[in-house]
Amino acid sequence: MSYTAPVKDMLFNIEHLANIEQIAQIPAFADAGLDTAQAVLEEAAKFNEGVLAPLNWTGDQHPTSFKDGVVTATPGFKEAFKQYAEAGWQGLQHPADFGGQGLPKTIGAACIEMCNSANMSFALCPLLSDGAIEALLTAGSDELNAVYLEKLISGTWTGTMNLTEPQAGSDLAAVRTRAEPLPDGSYKVFGTKIFITWGEHDMADNIVHLVLARVQGAPEGVKGISLFVVPKFLVNGDGSLGARNDVHCVSIEHKMGIKASPTAVLQYGDHGGAIGYLVGQENRGLEYMFIMMNAARYAVGVQGIAIAERAYQQAVTFSRDRIQSRPVDGSLPAAGPIINHPDVRRMLMTMRAYTEGCRAMATTAASAYDAAHHHPDADTRKANQAFYEFMVPLVKGYSTEMSLTVTSLAVQVHGGMGYIEETGVAQYYRDAKILTIYEGTTAIQSNDLVGRKTARDGGQTAKGIAGQIETTEAELLASGTAHALAVAKRLKAARLAFLDVVDFVAGNTKASPNAVFAGSVPYLMLAGNLMSGWQMARALLVAEKAVAAGNDMAFMQAKVTTARFYADHILSQAPGVRDAIVDGSESVTAMALDAF
Amino acid sequence: MSYTAPVKDMLFNIEHLANIEQIAQIPAFADAGLDTAQAVLEEAAKFNEGVLAPLNWTGDQHPTSFKDGVVTATPGFKEAFKQYAEAGWQGLQHPADFGGQGLPKTIGAACIEMCNSANMSFALCPLLSDGAIEALLTAGSDELNAVYLEKLISGTWTGTMNLTEPQAGSDLAAVRTRAEPLPDGSYKVFGTKIFITWGEHDMADNIVHLVLARVQGAPEGVKGISLFVVPKFLVNGDGSLGARNDVHCVSIEHKMGIKASPTAVLQYGDHGGAIGYLVGQENRGLEYMFIMMNAARYAVGVQGIAIAERAYQQAVTFSRDRIQSRPVDGSLPAAGPIINHPDVRRMLMTMRAYTEGCRAMATTAASAYDAAHHHPDADTRKANQAFYEFMVPLVKGYSTEMSLTVTSLAVQVHGGMGYIEETGVAQYYRDAKILTIYEGTTAIQSNDLVGRKTARDGGQTAKGIAGQIETTEAELLASGTAHALAVAKRLKAARLAFLDVVDFVAGNTKASPNAVFAGSVPYLMLAGNLMSGWQMARALLVAEKAVAAGNDMAFMQAKVTTARFYADHILSQAPGVRDAIVDGSESVTAMALDAF
Repeated sequence: MSYTAPVKDMLFNIEHLANIEQIAQIPAFADAGLDTAQAVLEEAAKFNEGVLAPLNWTGDQHPTSFKDGVVTATPGFKEAFKQYAEAGWQGLQHPADFGGQGLPKTIGAACIEMCNSANMSFALCPLLSDGAIEALLTAGSDELNAVYLEKLISGTWTGTMNLTEPQAGSDLAAVRTRAEPLPDGSYKVFGTKIFITWGEHDMADNIVHLVLARVQGAPEGVKGISLFVVPKFLVNGDGSLGARNDVHCVSIEHKMGIKASPTAVLQYGDHGGAIGYLVGQENRGLEYMFIMMNAARYAVGVQGIAIAERAYQQAVTFSRDRIQSRPVDGSLPAAGPIINHPDVRRMLMTMRAYTEGCRAMATTAASAYDAAHHHPDADTRKANQAFYEFMVPLVKGYSTEMSLTVTSLAVQVHGGMGYIEETGVAQYYRDAKILTIYEGTTAIQSNDLVGRKTARDGGQTAKGIAGQIETTEAELLASGTAHALAVAKRLKAARLAFLDVVDFVAGNTKASPNAVFAGSVPYLMLAGNLMSGWQMARALLVAEKAVAAGNDMAFMQAKVTTARFYADHILSQAPGVRDAIVDGSESVTAMALDAF
Repeated sequence: MSYTAPVKDMLFNIEHLANIEQIAQIPAFADAGLDTAQAVLEEAAKFNEGVLAPLNWTGDQHPTSFKDGVVTATPGFKEAFKQYAEAGWQGLQHPADFGGQGLPKTIGAACIEMCNSANMSFALCPLLSDGAIEALLTAGSDELNAVYLEKLISGTWTGTMNLTEPQAGSDLAAVRTRAEPLPDGSYKVFGTKIFITWGEHDMADNIVHLVLARVQGAPEGVKGISLFVVPKFLVNGDGSLGARNDVHCVSIEHKMGIKASPTAVLQYGDHGGAIGYLVGQENRGLEYMFIMMNAARYAVGVQGIAIAERAYQQAVTFSRDRIQSRPVDGSLPAAGPIINHPDVRRMLMTMRAYTEGCRAMATTAASAYDAAHHHPDADTRKANQAFYEFMVPLVKGYSTEMSLTVTSLAVQVHGGMGYIEETGVAQYYRDAKILTIYEGTTAIQSNDLVGRKTARDGGQTAKGIAGQIETTEAELLASGTAHALAVAKRLKAARLAFLDVVDFVAGNTKASPNAVFAGSVPYLMLAGNLMSGWQMARALLVAEKAVAAGNDMAFMQAKVTTARFYADHILSQAPGVRDAIVDGSESVTAMALDAF
C-alpha cells in the first residue's frame, strides 16, 4: 500500500501542456519555472510518500473519534499535520504578504494531488483551510485578514466551510442559521450546521469557521445570505487565544469512507450566541462562498485524480505479484502474473488513461487560473478566466465520476482479495464515493455547466474551446502517424458530438429546461471526456516528437500508448452519449410520478 | 429501508416474455402456470418482505462473528433460516422425489430475486445449498444422494462450494487439496480452502461441503480434480449425526460488505484427515463443479438484479421525501421533493431500466433452462440449452456490473445522507461489489462467452439470437408507434454492433487471442446490453398493445416509458463499445510491462 508520486507525469503536463515557462513570464510568478516545479514536486513527493501515505490505512482502521464533545484525530495525524504546517505546505499557493510562497496553481495542484493520493482524509483539512483563505483574501477586511490569514496560511490554525444544514444541502436558499448584529459590529450566530469537514479536531490550536447565515431582516432565498468568520476560540487583541466561542461539535458522522476525516455537526449559539465577524458585505455571502467553493471544487476534482492514481498503483503492484493462469497467447510456459492477461491490462489501461487524462485536463485548467489571476494583459486574463470557469465543473464532476470507475476496477483487479478490507484497496472504493457528492454533487456541477457556463453566453465559450480542439486535430493530421490519425478521428467525432450538445443546451435551456437538464450530467461527462481526451491528444503530439528524437523513450512511448488507448476506449464513447442527450430527453421525465 | 417485492413486474415477465403457459405444457411442469406463479410469488413476497428484509441492516451492523472456531450468525438469522426451511423455500426448484416442489426455474428465479433483495447475506446460504444439490443431482451416487439430498432440500442441512485456495482463485488448475483413498471407498481430505461462503455457521445441524481435491497420482491441471462431499458431521447409517469430521473453520474474513455472510477459511485434515466421499468419478470434478457453478452464476446474476431493485426502491422513497430546490421548469411554486428534478429522474430511470432489463433477460433465460431440461422434444431441448448457456455469462456478468452502477446511483440520489452508514443505502454499494467477483469474475464470464459460447461454434448461437432480435425489430416496425420506431432504431444499431463483434471474436480467437480477449469484457457488456434491451423491446410491444386495449394502463404505460428510456440511454451506447472492441484492441496490450 505504498505510494509513489507520479512526479514525471506531473512535470510532463506542467512543462508541455500547461507551458510553465509561459507562466513564469508573468511577473507574479517570476521564479516559478520548470526547475522550481521540479524542486517543489520532488520535495512534496518525499513528504507525502514518507509521512502521509503510511497513515492512510491507519485512518481507516482507527477513525477520528468523538467523545464528550472532543474530537481526537487518528493516531499520528496531529504530528503529521504539525510537520505539514512547519514545512510550509499550507501556504504553497497563498500570497507571500501573509507568509505564503505564492506559487502558481499549476505547481500547487500537483502537490495537492500528492497529498490526496497519500491520504485523502488528512488532505481534506488543508483543503478546507485553503477555501477559508480564499474567501478571506477575496472579501475579508484588512482587520479580519490581519487576525486570521497568517495563522491559516502557516497551518497554525485550520479553516472550515459551513454551508449545509439539515434542510439545506444542494439548496442553499433554505439556509436558516441566523446572525444578530451586536453594537460593536460583530454578530451573534445561532443555528445548526451539518457535514462540516474537520469541523472539530485536536490538530490545531484554533479552528476558523466560515459560516453562511442570515442577518435578521435579510431577503428570502440566496440573496439574503451573509458570510461570517466564527472562530472556535476568540482571538485577543495581541493575537493570543481568548475565550471559547459558543460553537460546539455535538457529534461526528459514521461514514462509508474517509473515516479519519471528522464530519461534524456543529451547534452555534446554544449558550447565548457564537461571536461571528462579517466577511465583506451583508447578503453577499453566497457570492464569496462561491469563490471558495470554486477553489474547493477544483481541489475535489484533484482528489478524484489522486485516489484514482493511488488505486491504480496498488492494482499494478498486485497484478505483477499475483500468479494465476497461463496467458491466452501462450507467451509464458505456465501460470504467470495476472498482468499478462489482456483483461487485466484493459483494466489497468482504463485506470491509467482516465487518471492521466483528468490530470492533464486539471493541469491545463490550473495554468488558465494562473493566467486569469495574474497575467498583465486584461484580455488574456479574461479569456483564461472563461476557460478556467468552463473547466471547473468538468474537473470536479468528470474526475470524481471517473474515480468511481477506477477504484472499482482496482478492487476488481484484486479479485476476491479486493473485497477483504485488510488488502486496503476497498478503502479507495469507499473513500471515493464521497467525491461525486460533496462540494456540489455531479448534478450541481452539471447545472453550473449548463446554466452559467454554456447557456448564459449562448455556447460561445464552449465553441471557442471546440475551435482550439479542432486546431489540435489539424496538428494530429499534419503529424500523420498512425496513432495521431486514429486519435484525430476519435477526437473529431467527440468534438462534433459535443458541439451538437452545446447547440442543444444553448438553444433549449430557456424554452425546455426539463429536456436540457435531463441530459445535464451526460453533457458534463461528454465534455469532461472530450477535454481530457483533447489533452491526451496534445500529449501524444509532444510524446511522438520526443520518441522520434529519441528523448526519454520509455516514458514518451508509454504516453503515446495511453493517449491512443484513451481515444480508442474512452473518447470513442462520446457520440453515444450525444445521442442519449439530444434524442433521449423525453423518456427521462415521461414517467408518471406515482409510477415510480 | 423496507422492501416491496416487484411481483407485478415479475409476473409480467413470466407471463409475456417467458410464456409460462408454454412451460406449463411441459409434462414435468403440468400445474406450473400463471396462477401457480402468482400464488408462489405472493407467498414469497410476504415471507421476504416480512421476515428477511428487516434483518438486512441488522446483518451489516452485527456481522456474523467468529470466536474459538465457532461461527455465530447475525442475531435473528438462525430463527429466520428455520422459518425459511420449514416453509419449503429451499426445495422450490428441486425434485419432488427428494421432497422438493419441482417448480420451474422461471418461477423459482423470481423467488430467489426476492430473497436476495430482502437480504443478500442471508440468501447466500440457500444459494450455496442449491449449488450442492445440483452437483449431487448431476453426479452423486444413489447412496450419497439418499444420505444428503433430502436433508439439503428441506433446509435441515446446508451446503457449500469449496473451490478456492490461496494460490487457486480463477485458476482452478492450481488446486492442491489432496484426497487419499481409504479401503472402504471413502477418502481422507487434506488442505486449505478459502473464501468459503457460509462455510461454518450455527443455522443448521450439519454442513455439506462440496470440495475440489486431487486424488493421489491424478493428472496435473484441471484434468486431475475430483469432487468430494465432506460433511461437517459424519452421518450414521440411520441418518443421525455421528462424529465431528476433521474440517474446521480457522477464521472468517473481514469484508467490505455482505457482512452477515461468513466467508470462511476451512482447514481440512489437520487432525488426521477429513472423511470425504467421491461424487461421480475421479478426475471429473471440474465438470460437475461447472454444473453447480452455472446454477450459481445464474443466481449471482439474479443477486445483481435483486440488490439493484432494493437500492432503486430506497432511492425512490428518499427522492419523494427529500425537499430541496424548486424544479427548473417552475412546475412547483417553491422547493419540492427532489424527484421533480430532471437529473434525479434520470438517475431513477437509469436504475429502473437496468433492473427491469436484466430481470427480463434473466427470466427469459430461466424459461429456456426449463425447456432445455424438461421439454419432451429433443431439438427444442437442444436449442433452449444453447440459448441458456449463451445467456448465463450475460446474466451473471452484465447484471452484476450494472448493479455497481445502480447502487452507486442510489447513494448519489441521497446526496450527503447516502454516505452516512445509518441511511442504509451505502450497504448496497458495499454489498454489491462482491457480485462482479465471486462465482467467476466478469473477466471469467467473458472468457466463457468468448471461448465456449461464441468461438467454439463460430458464432452460430450468437447469430441465431441476433436473428430472433431482428424479428422483434420487424414487429416494432410493423407496430409503427413512435416509441416502437425509436426502440427499433436503437435495437438494430446495437444488434449490428453485436454482430460485428461476434464476427471479430469468431474470426480472431485462435489467431489473435490477445486482441479478442482485450475486448472480452466489453463484448460481454455489449451483449448483455443488447439482450436486456431486446427483452425490453419485446415488453414494449406487449405493453403498447395493452395500453391500446385499455388494460392495466398505469403499469403498462410505465413499462413503455422504461423500455423507451432503456433504448434511448442504454442501448444507444452499444455502437461505441463495438468501436472500442474492434478498433481498439492493440492499445490494450501495447504498453511495455515495465512501463506500468
